[in-house]
Amino acid sequence: MAVSMDDDVPLILTLDDSGSSASAPLDDLDREELPNENGGSYEVINDASSPAAGDCCAQQSSARHNWEMNYQEAAIYLQEGENNDKFFTHPKNAKALAAYLFAHNHLFYLMELSTALLLLLLSLCEAPAVPMLRLGIFVHATLELFALIVVVFELSMKMRWLGFQTFIRHKRTMVKTCVLFVQFIEAIVVLVRQTSHVRITRALRCIFLVDCRYCGAVRRNLRQIFQSLPPFIDILLLLLFFMVIFAILGFYLFSPNQSDPYFNTLENSLVNLFVLLTTSNFPDVMMPSYARNPWSCVFFIVYLSIELYFIMNLLLAVVFDTFNDIEKRKFKSLLLHKRTAIQHAYRLLITKQRPSGISFKHFEGLLRFYKPRMCARERYLTFKALNQSNTPLVSLKDFYNFYEVVGLKWKAKRNREHWFDDLPRTAFLIFKGINILVKSRVFQYTMYTVVAVNGIWILVETFMLQGGNFFSRNVPWSYIVFLTIYGVELLLKTTGLGPVEYLSSGWNLFDFSVTLFAFLGLMALAFNMEPFYFIVVLRPLQLLRLFKLKKRYRNVLDTMFELFPRMASLGLTLLIFYYCFAIVGMEFFAGVVYPNCCNTSTVADSYRWINHTVGNKTVVEEGYYYLNNFDNILNSFVTLFELTVVNDWYIIMEGVTSQTTHWSRLYFMIFYIVTMVVMTIIVAFILDAFVFRMNYTRKNQDSEEDNGIVLEKEISKEEVVGIIELYKRSSATTETTQLQKIVLQMDKYGQMSTLFLGRRSRTKSDLSMKMYEEEIQ
Amino acid sequence: MAVSMDDDVPLILTLDDSGSSASAPLDDLDREELPNENGGSYEVINDASSPAAGDCCAQQSSARHNWEMNYQEAAIYLQEGENNDKFFTHPKNAKALAAYLFAHNHLFYLMELSTALLLLLLSLCEAPAVPMLRLGIFVHATLELFALIVVVFELSMKMRWLGFQTFIRHKRTMVKTCVLFVQFIEAIVVLVRQTSHVRITRALRCIFLVDCRYCGAVRRNLRQIFQSLPPFIDILLLLLFFMVIFAILGFYLFSPNQSDPYFNTLENSLVNLFVLLTTSNFPDVMMPSYARNPWSCVFFIVYLSIELYFIMNLLLAVVFDTFNDIEKRKFKSLLLHKRTAIQHAYRLLITKQRPSGISFKHFEGLLRFYKPRMCARERYLTFKALNQSNTPLVSLKDFYNFYEVVGLKWKAKRNREHWFDDLPRTAFLIFKGINILVKSRVFQYTMYTVVAVNGIWILVETFMLQGGNFFSRNVPWSYIVFLTIYGVELLLKTTGLGPVEYLSSGWNLFDFSVTLFAFLGLMALAFNMEPFYFIVVLRPLQLLRLFKLKKRYRNVLDTMFELFPRMASLGLTLLIFYYCFAIVGMEFFAGVVYPNCCNTSTVADSYRWINHTVGNKTVVEEGYYYLNNFDNILNSFVTLFELTVVNDWYIIMEGVTSQTTHWSRLYFMIFYIVTMVVMTIIVAFILDAFVFRMNYTRKNQDSEEDNGIVLEKEISKEEVVGIIELYKRSSATTETTQLQKIVLQMDKYGQMSTLFLGRRSRTKSDLSMKMYEEEIQ
Repeated sequence: MAVSMDDDVPLILTLDDSGSSASAPLDDLDREELPNENGGSYEVINDASSPAAGDCCAQQSSARHNWEMNYQEAAIYLQEGENNDKFFTHPKNAKALAAYLFAHNHLFYLMELSTALLLLLLSLCEAPAVPMLRLGIFVHATLELFALIVVVFELSMKMRWLGFQTFIRHKRTMVKTCVLFVQFIEAIVVLVRQTSHVRITRALRCIFLVDCRYCGAVRRNLRQIFQSLPPFIDILLLLLFFMVIFAILGFYLFSPNQSDPYFNTLENSLVNLFVLLTTSNFPDVMMPSYARNPWSCVFFIVYLSIELYFIMNLLLAVVFDTFNDIEKRKFKSLLLHKRTAIQHAYRLLITKQRPSGISFKHFEGLLRFYKPRMCARERYLTFKALNQSNTPLVSLKDFYNFYEVVGLKWKAKRNREHWFDDLPRTAFLIFKGINILVKSRVFQYTMYTVVAVNGIWILVETFMLQGGNFFSRNVPWSYIVFLTIYGVELLLKTTGLGPVEYLSSGWNLFDFSVTLFAFLGLMALAFNMEPFYFIVVLRPLQLLRLFKLKKRYRNVLDTMFELFPRMASLGLTLLIFYYCFAIVGMEFFAGVVYPNCCNTSTVADSYRWINHTVGNKTVVEEGYYYLNNFDNILNSFVTLFELTVVNDWYIIMEGVTSQTTHWSRLYFMIFYIVTMVVMTIIVAFILDAFVFRMNYTRKNQDSEEDNGIVLEKEISKEEVVGIIELYKRSSATTETTQLQKIVLQMDKYGQMSTLFLGRRSRTKSDLSMKMYEEEIQ
Repeated sequence: MAVSMDDDVPLILTLDDSGSSASAPLDDLDREELPNENGGSYEVINDASSPAAGDCCAQQSSARHNWEMNYQEAAIYLQEGENNDKFFTHPKNAKALAAYLFAHNHLFYLMELSTALLLLLLSLCEAPAVPMLRLGIFVHATLELFALIVVVFELSMKMRWLGFQTFIRHKRTMVKTCVLFVQFIEAIVVLVRQTSHVRITRALRCIFLVDCRYCGAVRRNLRQIFQSLPPFIDILLLLLFFMVIFAILGFYLFSPNQSDPYFNTLENSLVNLFVLLTTSNFPDVMMPSYARNPWSCVFFIVYLSIELYFIMNLLLAVVFDTFNDIEKRKFKSLLLHKRTAIQHAYRLLITKQRPSGISFKHFEGLLRFYKPRMCARERYLTFKALNQSNTPLVSLKDFYNFYEVVGLKWKAKRNREHWFDDLPRTAFLIFKGINILVKSRVFQYTMYTVVAVNGIWILVETFMLQGGNFFSRNVPWSYIVFLTIYGVELLLKTTGLGPVEYLSSGWNLFDFSVTLFAFLGLMALAFNMEPFYFIVVLRPLQLLRLFKLKKRYRNVLDTMFELFPRMASLGLTLLIFYYCFAIVGMEFFAGVVYPNCCNTSTVADSYRWINHTVGNKTVVEEGYYYLNNFDNILNSFVTLFELTVVNDWYIIMEGVTSQTTHWSRLYFMIFYIVTMVVMTIIVAFILDAFVFRMNYTRKNQDSEEDNGIVLEKEISKEEVVGIIELYKRSSATTETTQLQKIVLQMDKYGQMSTLFLGRRSRTKSDLSMKMYEEEIQ
């Protein structure tokens, strides 16, 4: 009997120890005529289950072994589909599989990430180091060598898994190897010479971070940026072309004016028009000529209209359009890739005997590898959710929904509405009352009023204060009053809704943490703890709750949260660019800017630091700009942020230029263009995401609130008993006990079946699927 | 016989003198069951053609009179459809019609425009006048009164045409009337008192311009701006909300720092964060706190990330989305409106006898009113182009294409290819040779090379010059050489292609004018004519020709030209806002800013003007910002442009504030927000237009070049003779002779028919039609 369940033979056997059959299933990926090949030939190759083999038991165990292999490979295929890994990196034999499994788990990923971070953070301690973190050359070079050796180990594991041929073909890995080689040599040189040389190559360390498994989103962003580049560069050339024309015009028109320092040479003319493009020197650059002839403003108005208001927007339009197009095409190719992965996995899971679908037994085997943490109940529910037909097999068509269904979190649909339903009568009534109160509109609007009053209170209170040290005083009573109200509200809500339901809403979580912070702030005030004063000033954040009131704000804020991961990855991408530029900037400009450094330049005022005595007081006249330097990596980051914001960036540029050569301007201009690219992409991304979402809501106006994806499945008692039987046969005790609990539960409530709810949040991919429905097919 | 052609009676008779039947056809606009009403009752109402009327002749002439009325009304309907005038302003009786016709011709429009412009331009000469244009109070007040009286006259004509009821209901006209009233009183007051009082209401003069017929595009823009406002304001509130929160935070965090002037009071904190939103004070506002504690930069980075990089982009996204949506809906409603207009016109043109379509005779009558300048040939071709069926009648379905077809310019398809085909053999060969040369790729690329070399030459030449007065020298020989080459090219092209074909291309026109300018510049150089020197510096514009080389640039530049009218109207809209703010600015801030005015404020340096002697030289130290004032309307416009560009606008704001009250800041902040709205709309518009066009090209990649709309129609000799007969009968001699020319032409070449080509440029509406095809139906 057991044999009749187990002797189904997989249609395809792969990953056997000999490795000879491995390439076969990989080579004919597109074979669609599977069911016709029932008398398949792959199992012959597998020496253990060769037709000549003897007793039933050996055959059975080898079959089981083969199935395990197939499950594992199918799970790998599905993972590759999910992560958009190309199939040519698929492990080809058992040795590769071992390496693959070694290199594909969170421990390994974390190691990858931490070595990359270590390498990046080293620049905090190297040569122009942050004063507090300075390390000896020996120490940081040794650390670097250690990290590089770890990277070598990681790469060797990757090579083992990919094989030499594929390894060579994989571009990103090859670049990484080259960078590693260079870094290695330089680290050794530093260690030997015991002194740091000019190491611009440190800027390349970013590649170790970019290559991390966890930084997939960053890689995607970088790819998108590079794909948007060609049209961007075209328009940029147009921009520069007009700039040159206007520079020549400006030179001819304004250089006769002796008092105009902006156009006296062609180079100045060019540089100033470049800066004018960023508007950073605007009225100033016009003033000398405007003072002489009022009509000269026409030149500047025309220039700005063409360059800033037309071509710059054109740039955005072109990038937005490319972005939009790429996004759509990417979605399509991703969908196709996932489908191919599912096809691969499917072919590994069907049997010779039943080629029309996957049985639960094999599906369960797959999930054991694909999602080891999933419990037996969830596995069965996933299977049931996939299975649209009434047969016990999941067909390929149903299996295509795998990715959508596997992410669902399953929960038995509760019969009891509230957490306090089981409590005694009196308690129940009290809690029920609180629940009704908390859910009532009156309560909500009272709270909004309190928040609004609090807001006005804070505003007025702050307005009344006129500078000085506010915190040394006693705790103001209004603070205590409002905090008490919030505390009571929190308590009521938690008891009325139950802690779990309360904290499942993002807004409640926000309330909770702000109230907690306010409480901590109160503590800080009461006990005079200096370093925590900043918490006190976070109080006004409570006011954000008012934005729950209007639908558009809820929409905007929801979208904001949905976008957050993507925004974070874009920010990280920007930071990576920052890192490269910071390293280059530190190598070239570290220490060139200091107080009173630039007295000969046009921006001398901004770098001034004079300490003179007027009467009996010392007056310090500070330009402060010497603070915007490249003296260590943190300062560089702040300086680069200032350059990103663009305003008055030319002061920083001119300061550095006056201390070095005028070629330094190239660094600043290139940085401007690079951030312009990234910023334009960010704008295009936000535009795209919002317009997409708004179109989506417009299209689905009738469908009520957006609760994510919800699926309902009913399981009857017989079904559970059947699965228990199945698990008992394969002697999986944990699963059996888990499932028996469900049966007990059903017996307790006297039900013949239980309803389960599968739930997950809606992803962009779901939305895209719905939006592009017609186009995809 | 003549009667059998003429006695067809219109189905509907309107605009008769009694006016009693007028409202009937207007009231049942949606009557679709027309053909069933053949025994219509409208002709009974017309007293001239009442069934009781006597002799045949009188009946015939009255029928003709009725037809003329119908033609006119149909033409008016079609015009209303084209201009998107609502039908409730349709003239209801003969008196109204007379007024309507009086108020709807270019003379009247021009009068409207010129009075509006006169009123606006008066502010050049009023109180804080441009020095050169100052007029006595008596003079400008009289001029104003005169212009206002003209406006009264215009309005009374409008009232006559609309009738009192509709006049009252028409919002824009009512606002105009009120403004007129106020202006009138003020002008009289000024005239009586002989002194100008504070007249902020002058800002309202814009409404006279906005109401002009020629400013329809501006009205559309304003409507679009107002429609985009609600979501805009929502997001703006979010922005301001965060600003307030951060202002409170900033005040608490940084006011203990005595050396930080930016956050010492809550008001300062708010103002500086508002300015920071525009990045205009960026690194400076951070510097004092940054100098004290490097971590304070986090506050500013978070603030800018949220406000500038997120919410501001959100603003753009929301406006873009709204804009997009409105654009689509507007297109649909316009289309519907046009269709309704066509239905109205159709019902006026069909006859009782043949209710299934419009005959050429009536179509011709319509066109005589709709496009009086169209010649007989074009009328017939338009009719033929509309008529898709083989019957001699145009059905309603065909008539729906009226607007698309009526704009076509018809030309006989030439048999001869070149203009020189008729010349003698030798000349022909020479010109043919030139033609082939000019059209060859070699010639084109040679010219590109010459232009590129010229560009490099100019760049190098300019680079070699180091300031000074270049123009006093002789004409450089390179100038003459390149100009000769361009001249020869121009000559070759004109002769090779023929002047007409040469100038029909926009690029050639551009070449031509630039070369002409360069020639004028040469003249100016040779004869030392000072005021024309600026022409010389336009030479580099020739380089723009290089952009013909790449497809994307051609696309971009084409789109630029297509967008130009719309951009111009957006620019005009911005100017109208400028005008309002300039008037207000002048009333409040005229004369408050002058050299050394603001020595007590934080921006004293920028307003400094010191004339001190160092050694034996006088050194002038100028801050120049006193030039950015509101002393007259031209200065105000420049100042407002500087405020629009935003950089360093706070210097202007602080300068004015230090001389007045701190409430003046409101003016500047409101101006910033208003320009932000308009600018965001402009960006959204450019984005929308480009993305739309790119999508369009992507959708129609296969269809070759975009030559506009082209239609071909063949006319046989018999047809022409037939039409001549028709015209002869109605004794229209000009039309008859025109058409006879065509017959003669055909006889000369021995053709039995001529092919005509109808051509017009593609408009946005055509593109939209193609894009929204599916959605519209």
